[in-house]
Amino acid sequence: MLTPRGTNGRRPTRPIVLTSHPRTGTPQAPPITWGAADPASRGPVVATLTSPGARNAVGTHAGSYSLYRALAVAAGQLDPGHRPDLTNTAPAAPIGPFPQWSEPGRIVSLDPWGHMVGEAFAGRLAEGWDIRPTIAVTRAHIHMPEITEAIRAGRLAPDDEVLNAAGDARVTKVAIEPVWWLPGIADRFGIDETTLRRGLFEQTGGMFPELITRPDLQLFLPPIGGASVYLFGDPARLGRPQTRIACRVHDECNGSDVFGSDICTCRPYLAHGIEVCIETAQQGGVGVIVYNRKEGRALGEVTKFLVYNARKRQQGGDRADAYFTRTECVAGVADMRLQELMPDVLHWLGITRIDRLVSMSNMKFEPIVASGITVLERVPIPDDLIPADASVEMDAKRAAGYFTAHVPDAAELAQAKGRELGA
Amino acid sequence: MLTPRGTNGRRPTRPIVLTSHPRTGTPQAPPITWGAADPASRGPVVATLTSPGARNAVGTHAGSYSLYRALAVAAGQLDPGHRPDLTNTAPAAPIGPFPQWSEPGRIVSLDPWGHMVGEAFAGRLAEGWDIRPTIAVTRAHIHMPEITEAIRAGRLAPDDEVLNAAGDARVTKVAIEPVWWLPGIADRFGIDETTLRRGLFEQTGGMFPELITRPDLQLFLPPIGGASVYLFGDPARLGRPQTRIACRVHDECNGSDVFGSDICTCRPYLAHGIEVCIETAQQGGVGVIVYNRKEGRALGEVTKFLVYNARKRQQGGDRADAYFTRTECVAGVADMRLQELMPDVLHWLGITRIDRLVSMSNMKFEPIVASGITVLERVPIPDDLIPADASVEMDAKRAAGYFTAHVPDAAELAQAKGRELGA
Repeated sequence: MLTPRGTNGRRPTRPIVLTSHPRTGTPQAPPITWGAADPASRGPVVATLTSPGARNAVGTHAGSYSLYRALAVAAGQLDPGHRPDLTNTAPAAPIGPFPQWSEPGRIVSLDPWGHMVGEAFAGRLAEGWDIRPTIAVTRAHIHMPEITEAIRAGRLAPDDEVLNAAGDARVTKVAIEPVWWLPGIADRFGIDETTLRRGLFEQTGGMFPELITRPDLQLFLPPIGGASVYLFGDPARLGRPQTRIACRVHDECNGSDVFGSDICTCRPYLAHGIEVCIETAQQGGVGVIVYNRKEGRALGEVTKFLVYNARKRQQGGDRADAYFTRTECVAGVADMRLQELMPDVLHWLGITRIDRLVSMSNMKFEPIVASGITVLERVPIPDDLIPADASVEMDAKRAAGYFTAHVPDAAELAQAKGRELGA
Repeated sequence: MLTPRGTNGRRPTRPIVLTSHPRTGTPQAPPITWGAADPASRGPVVATLTSPGARNAVGTHAGSYSLYRALAVAAGQLDPGHRPDLTNTAPAAPIGPFPQWSEPGRIVSLDPWGHMVGEAFAGRLAEGWDIRPTIAVTRAHIHMPEITEAIRAGRLAPDDEVLNAAGDARVTKVAIEPVWWLPGIADRFGIDETTLRRGLFEQTGGMFPELITRPDLQLFLPPIGGASVYLFGDPARLGRPQTRIACRVHDECNGSDVFGSDICTCRPYLAHGIEVCIETAQQGGVGVIVYNRKEGRALGEVTKFLVYNARKRQQGGDRADAYFTRTECVAGVADMRLQELMPDVLHWLGITRIDRLVSMSNMKFEPIVASGITVLERVPIPDDLIPADASVEMDAKRAAGYFTAHVPDAAELAQAKGRELGA
């Protein structure tokens, strides 16, 4: 314990405990046996702050939004003791349990029971434990202009079940917060757990000393964005070997996904993925869009825009043969998405085979296959969906080994040119 | 210093320092005089991890993406000593300096010099300080189906400058990472700095003990999402009193902004804001879209989906008169966006008057006006842009005092019904 030097001459009224897990007085949280098939044996993730001593995780709920919650408490706008009333919040459609949930090391970056806490840990909740969902499942209708256009062009036909004539598609959608089981994360990257904990602590500028001081806490809820999943077709078909699965794993690109920036193929490819998902659902399968909050290859948007400038201004202009180099100069690596963790969500959905993977990226394909999922077909983006300024990206990616029927050579690479900054 | 208990029997080869700011051996970072008009007096934000002793901030760059960087280092994929090569990355258009940058307390949640570090701190960079941009400015062409539709419907006319006949709009776009000056943040919320630091530390489960132990460090780079700004028209016109400004401040809603979910008006209102921005730019003004990463009113998407379920399942179904209550039951508050900080970006852009504010929200209007910006007109979303299932949201917001010509009474509120979960 430590009494802080006041910054404005005032002393706080009680000492600040420099650990979030004081060990005295409060009941200890149930132990976690990660991967146990029975939720009672697995144990609930307790990461709330209403009873600090009862926690069994480092960090807290809501990913990076935990900071807004903390600010709201500091500003006196939120009672820190508030506990959610979870009445009527249970999943709008059941998902799982599936055998993958208890296969060793299969899922390490989300809590497979995260949407079912009300059911799986009913007893603990009744005892008064503050257990919160880390996954939520709801239903929605979505409407995208590209899908209306696909109907108009005759590529999709309304069936009034998956898709209606107005272009509205029915979905089950899922929000997932990250829950990292640190021993499994370390294994996934082939490093020891101490190296992982040390890296996470030191290379964030000293976030969460308990990563170091509390090796008994094996769970970490990192303050990062999570994933959203959009399911087309009846989710009850998931986990059945005969169900055909179409899937796009999409990493957030706000500039394209929302604003339609023409320097990349992100939104067009996403829309094409949704079209394939709707088609598959109409044929009795399930379409799966995974949307990961990994802006700018998880380098963030500031780095992304710095790289855009460097690409546009380099000698010879924006060229496919220097596409990755410029990112490496600025960021130190061309990519920080760490796709090693990405297949977890597919296993959570009970997927063992993807019939149509709507992605050209080997950085996605390889970890999916390495994680034990069979991929039957890879669906490229149709050429007519590639925006004007995105040819540089496409050629660079093809040359870097993205799946393609045609690998451009050095001469072609030098040819694909992007727009100049002033244009 | 402390040698951690190894989790796998191995001892790390060097002790782990449980502070990110060891005070010995390395040069001290230049002091920060926040709000100083001259950047040399203000001092650079030094938050990199390549020379820990030289830092003058808590936390590090890239917001929540700092975790991915840390993981990449831990996994051996990134050299922790990498320094960005910032060649050719300078802003594609100059922004500022504006008088607001040095008005006391005007800007406390971003670094106004963040995009200009190469210029403003050239001397320090030459001395070897690792100073990184927290803002990046680039140019782009964007294409949104709603804008093409506005041209088709005759609401927008292409001018080949701001907008071409194919529906491509020219923008200057800006990515901004959060940089919090803690004394100013505390003032903004009317609390003392110790309360703020304590809340941020304790209510995140113990993130960054230096918030408590190092009151001399007044800057905090929180691991949250930042903002993107899209500017329509020549940004050189910013800061001139005669320039007409259209503006929408939009808070991220992935389900609507990207996927077109019909339960809210987010994307339709955003698209309408862009239409107004293009129109204003064509008339010689500047259109400003601010896109804040505040998913689900900064409660995060898991909470948002839990609330959707509770709304749809409550007795009487989804109704406007219970719209905010369901969020409060789950989250403890109806909203956590803390709009008190939101006007900072407008002041950074040199804005003193908004001619057309494309928002009905008093939660946005009031802090903007309270911060000293004049708002001349408020532009509601046209009725024909409100999606099928979003009437509940609209009526609830109107009744809660969102700007509107028509405030619905209790009978009307009880009438607006949303779709059921199974539908």
